[in-house]
Amino acid sequence: MLNEELKIKGELAQTASYQLATLPTEIKNQALLAMADALELQEKEILTANESDMNNGRERGTSKALLDRLLLTSARIKDMAEGLRAVATLSDPVGEVEAMWKGAQDIEIGRMRVPLGVIGIIYEARPNVTVDAAGLCLKTGNAVILRGSSDALQSNRTIAAILAKAAESAGAPRGSIQLIENPSREVATQMMKLNQYLDVLIPRGGAGLIQSVVENATVPVIETGIGNCHIYVDSSADLAMAEEIIVNAKIQRPAVCNAAESLLVHEKVAAQFLPKAGKRLLDLGVELRGCARTQALLPEAKAASEKDYSAEFLDLILSVKVVDSLEEAMGHIHKYGTKHSEAIVTESYKNARTFLQGVDAATVYVNASTRFTDGFQFGFGAEIGISTQKLHARGPMGLKELTTIKYIVYGNGQVRI
Amino acid sequence: MLNEELKIKGELAQTASYQLATLPTEIKNQALLAMADALELQEKEILTANESDMNNGRERGTSKALLDRLLLTSARIKDMAEGLRAVATLSDPVGEVEAMWKGAQDIEIGRMRVPLGVIGIIYEARPNVTVDAAGLCLKTGNAVILRGSSDALQSNRTIAAILAKAAESAGAPRGSIQLIENPSREVATQMMKLNQYLDVLIPRGGAGLIQSVVENATVPVIETGIGNCHIYVDSSADLAMAEEIIVNAKIQRPAVCNAAESLLVHEKVAAQFLPKAGKRLLDLGVELRGCARTQALLPEAKAASEKDYSAEFLDLILSVKVVDSLEEAMGHIHKYGTKHSEAIVTESYKNARTFLQGVDAATVYVNASTRFTDGFQFGFGAEIGISTQKLHARGPMGLKELTTIKYIVYGNGQVRI
Repeated sequence: MLNEELKIKGELAQTASYQLATLPTEIKNQALLAMADALELQEKEILTANESDMNNGRERGTSKALLDRLLLTSARIKDMAEGLRAVATLSDPVGEVEAMWKGAQDIEIGRMRVPLGVIGIIYEARPNVTVDAAGLCLKTGNAVILRGSSDALQSNRTIAAILAKAAESAGAPRGSIQLIENPSREVATQMMKLNQYLDVLIPRGGAGLIQSVVENATVPVIETGIGNCHIYVDSSADLAMAEEIIVNAKIQRPAVCNAAESLLVHEKVAAQFLPKAGKRLLDLGVELRGCARTQALLPEAKAASEKDYSAEFLDLILSVKVVDSLEEAMGHIHKYGTKHSEAIVTESYKNARTFLQGVDAATVYVNASTRFTDGFQFGFGAEIGISTQKLHARGPMGLKELTTIKYIVYGNGQVRI
Repeated sequence: MLNEELKIKGELAQTASYQLATLPTEIKNQALLAMADALELQEKEILTANESDMNNGRERGTSKALLDRLLLTSARIKDMAEGLRAVATLSDPVGEVEAMWKGAQDIEIGRMRVPLGVIGIIYEARPNVTVDAAGLCLKTGNAVILRGSSDALQSNRTIAAILAKAAESAGAPRGSIQLIENPSREVATQMMKLNQYLDVLIPRGGAGLIQSVVENATVPVIETGIGNCHIYVDSSADLAMAEEIIVNAKIQRPAVCNAAESLLVHEKVAAQFLPKAGKRLLDLGVELRGCARTQALLPEAKAASEKDYSAEFLDLILSVKVVDSLEEAMGHIHKYGTKHSEAIVTESYKNARTFLQGVDAATVYVNASTRFTDGFQFGFGAEIGISTQKLHARGPMGLKELTTIKYIVYGNGQVRI
């Protein structure tokens, strides 16, 4: 039996999505600004709800890291509001006709960019995702059904109600922004199979959440996030550049998906590169886990296991391997990588081209840190996540990735012969 | 336990896919031509295998319709070969860089079109799908794992072996084209969950097959096919044009997904339009199932049930409804349609625009038959199916829809600040 809340909200979202599809850009932008203002105006209400979530969390002995993600402050609420205002300034992809051409019998065919329809977002404890997802979906003319973590239920409920009311007051249809309030797992699982109402499901969170959604969903999913990213230092690399890149990719923000988890070094430069760069990484607090050849050059490195080469550490740990060739490096990346972001440091034209064309990943770099895999760094002005699947969207997803196309055809009575 | 055949073929396909990704266009085209020649040269072998499938089918009391789809003849083999030759003439989307721009710190970012990787195709009795899918996947640099119906196993096995050998002899990597020979359902179900090797799964067949794949797959699926398409005759329509369009959309080829299944008529023109167009449809052997207002104007029409308005008849049956307004027509389409192909016949600029923008379907027509929803009619030169989902591909899928993108980034030592 379909849960009543899902049914009611699903139907309402679908109806809203038909109106949202043709809502003028100006009204969508006004709604975003109204949502931003409302968040700031009702800050107290939000902080009170958040305090209740925080107290529940502390009582349940929730980890400090999770509590920090859950916590809202006046500054964080202001950031969320500014985020909505920034989305209002972005250009609207909906309605754009990307190409128009003549088909059989001179029918005129256009590819028009349109909203996906109804998007489901399943996410973990960060209440800012509620605001972020609601803003991006509204801008792109999609109705959204949010299902956050039960840890953040009071915060999310308050925020979603404020956003929905503000959007509606500015002219968005009722049902544009909805939150599932039933925290049960069964309802989440039903949501993953809500094909009659949901066009797409986007999980945002850790590996466990994403895996569960991929395994259970019958609604088309955009898989985000897992990044076991490599930096390969080629035999021709500028070693000073390579050192800056691996240090940046590893330590600038180790807990994110585009951080480097593994360093591959060509054997020709290993003796010159590894002791120096390795020492610097060790001094910066990075634990190194290497192959035998790495350990011979860097006695401080621990031995790497097969599991280490597959790991997304999200921490100050780096697996290291000395390889005999570019081909071995690429083979290693294909075996252990997660097709997220991969970089080569090289001065060889040929090797740069071979790596760029041959490595199968969402983003492939020559001579730059993997940390640039990000919608803002790429200039999209927004980011809903980083797709690691190949269907529909790959890499950083901006507004355009929250839309699809439809073909529009102008005729004057043509029938098929 | 993962079936051994799937494991071996999955691994081989993945390895092949890395080589296929950078295989020169010229070699892919030579492989397609070699495949075409081999089919014609080994016609006898194929016909013998097909005769065995046909005999098994007859013994099992297989329906005439299915036996006709299964049957291969010299002419049909020639058609399949010609199809491969036509694919060889199409331009190769792989490697195209669609845009290049500067991101943060002047990193140069490009969107490069690349193969999906390994594509699984699950299909029913038509052995020509084996050839068609193998050709389109090879052209787009994808490895393909085919799983056809057990009814066609001998034909498919023979064809796939011929194609694989010819492709390999022309320089395609081993494992580019493979067929799953184990006919068990359990293996098919395992294939739907083969995320470690398959990037995408495309079911080609009837509603039952597609539903089963959507429900069971954890591999991303491109859903194809179901079309409950409407023709809406607006109050301002050119009624002679409307009559030609509904007749064409209903009877030109009733068993395909872009045929019309439902006629909506504005009440202002119903009395003028329905008796004449209805009589013509009846004379052409179409069974009409209408609402009370339809029956009042056309006594030969049977009463339509709720189920009739949802049905994809794929037959000479048409549901008919008189509506009070454009809005009612659009509401009906959103309620009963399958988001495939929808048409309005109108002389009103405003209503044409409202319908084009407001109807949520893969293809929306003004004043043309829905029968044009087809990769060849659209000028794509090929078609792998018609997507009725919104993720990745929507409407007729040509070569481009069998590819994805990756971001390539050129730097000169940039690190993230």
